[in-house]
Amino acid sequence: MLNDTITTKKIKLSLVGAGPGDPDLITLKGIKTLAKADAILYDALVNPDLLDYAPKEIPKIFVGKRAGKHSYTQTEINQLIVEYAYHFGHVVRLKGGDPFVFGRGQEEIEYAEAFGISTEVIPGISSSISLPAIHKIPLTKRGINESFWVITGTTKSGEISSDITLAAQSKASVIILMGMKKLKEIQAVYLQHHQEELPFVIIQNGSMPNEKTGFGTLKNLLKVASKNKLDSPAVIMIGEVVRTHPAFKKQKLFSHNNLLNLN
Amino acid sequence: MLNDTITTKKIKLSLVGAGPGDPDLITLKGIKTLAKADAILYDALVNPDLLDYAPKEIPKIFVGKRAGKHSYTQTEINQLIVEYAYHFGHVVRLKGGDPFVFGRGQEEIEYAEAFGISTEVIPGISSSISLPAIHKIPLTKRGINESFWVITGTTKSGEISSDITLAAQSKASVIILMGMKKLKEIQAVYLQHHQEELPFVIIQNGSMPNEKTGFGTLKNLLKVASKNKLDSPAVIMIGEVVRTHPAFKKQKLFSHNNLLNLN
Repeated sequence: MLNDTITTKKIKLSLVGAGPGDPDLITLKGIKTLAKADAILYDALVNPDLLDYAPKEIPKIFVGKRAGKHSYTQTEINQLIVEYAYHFGHVVRLKGGDPFVFGRGQEEIEYAEAFGISTEVIPGISSSISLPAIHKIPLTKRGINESFWVITGTTKSGEISSDITLAAQSKASVIILMGMKKLKEIQAVYLQHHQEELPFVIIQNGSMPNEKTGFGTLKNLLKVASKNKLDSPAVIMIGEVVRTHPAFKKQKLFSHNNLLNLN
Repeated sequence: MLNDTITTKKIKLSLVGAGPGDPDLITLKGIKTLAKADAILYDALVNPDLLDYAPKEIPKIFVGKRAGKHSYTQTEINQLIVEYAYHFGHVVRLKGGDPFVFGRGQEEIEYAEAFGISTEVIPGISSSISLPAIHKIPLTKRGINESFWVITGTTKSGEISSDITLAAQSKASVIILMGMKKLKEIQAVYLQHHQEELPFVIIQNGSMPNEKTGFGTLKNLLKVASKNKLDSPAVIMIGEVVRTHPAFKKQKLFSHNNLLNLN
């Protein structure tokens, strides 16, 4: 516990998006904000190299989940933010991807503001959009579709989102975050709507040296994930646009070891 | 026209996302790539300050649309990329937001690769996600919804996307880019599905000093846009989560001049 000294510095909370993993995919504004921080609270999916942009002597607290267990509950994180802000001044909350994409960032903002702390959001590169792009898979393509739909695979209730059922009937490219524990349920929804041949890609640890991918069509979703040993954290993208990737070109079928049973 | 000298430098195309407008919202990787460029082709929505990261002496060509007319067609841009790559070496194609969000980036990649040019994509901060976040509007919120759906307002055919009809029946937060010329059609779809009271925000020139916003509920969409003189380029976000913005708090109704006839 901190002692109860209140800082004379400006009390502030900045939510900063760390990007998908590659440390160069943080924004310049994110770097400048880290350099001005008086304390940092960071998540599991944040590249720790980014902490080097902050002053050496300030506290940098890991508040993420490790090996499936919560280090801190959301309520505890909210309380830490307030405690650290009053004690140290400018708290930077460094979050993987974009802090407002399924990041509960807005709950932290709301809590801090209730304690009179001024807040700002510095957006980050979301894995949902950027990881397909890095693999040159367009989110949409003229003549194929006109939208993309980003859905969490892990809902409050533990069920998969009913939005996935609606999405399976649309032409939207569907991007599912935090869905690796629900592959079976996701596949079932799509097969129910006769989408066996719809292509998907799974990108694990995207933009990092240990990145892994798996391509296929939905009838092989589980097989590809298991054969390529794909697990969280990963982005699942489903949609006809995925077929533009070279993995789906016939002549490359045998040279691309990520591809399994496309036909 | 360039003369037909072929460069001895490495021939390459980098698609770089410039972010939503604030020049500090480009990624570090984007800055490093600009610094290595031999030629730049940039779009209308790119902040020209970003060109200062590139070497002074290299060609920097504006290929965007100005005042509604095309400076270059997409085919001409594709050809320019190839011509400049063979003539100068490393071409950076600097595009507003993220190059793969409705940016036709993949068409440029495909064209360049057909000419044997190696390519890469450096993702950018998309206005679709970042502008609501900067205004502290979450894309999703526990207990309200579980997804967000990004749709282009301007389809190939000129009609609004049929995805908007499906989206109006879902709980997804809906984000429409390039939709300011279709406000009437968008409103009609939502009213048809009895969504008169669903809140929206329009953010024009988001993250820039000349940013303008308008908040309201769908029955007032046209009125708010016209009263606040909102026009392209703007992001339209529709969904129950927008109501978390202070503009919708009763006590602020009269102090917030962007808000019109909420009741």
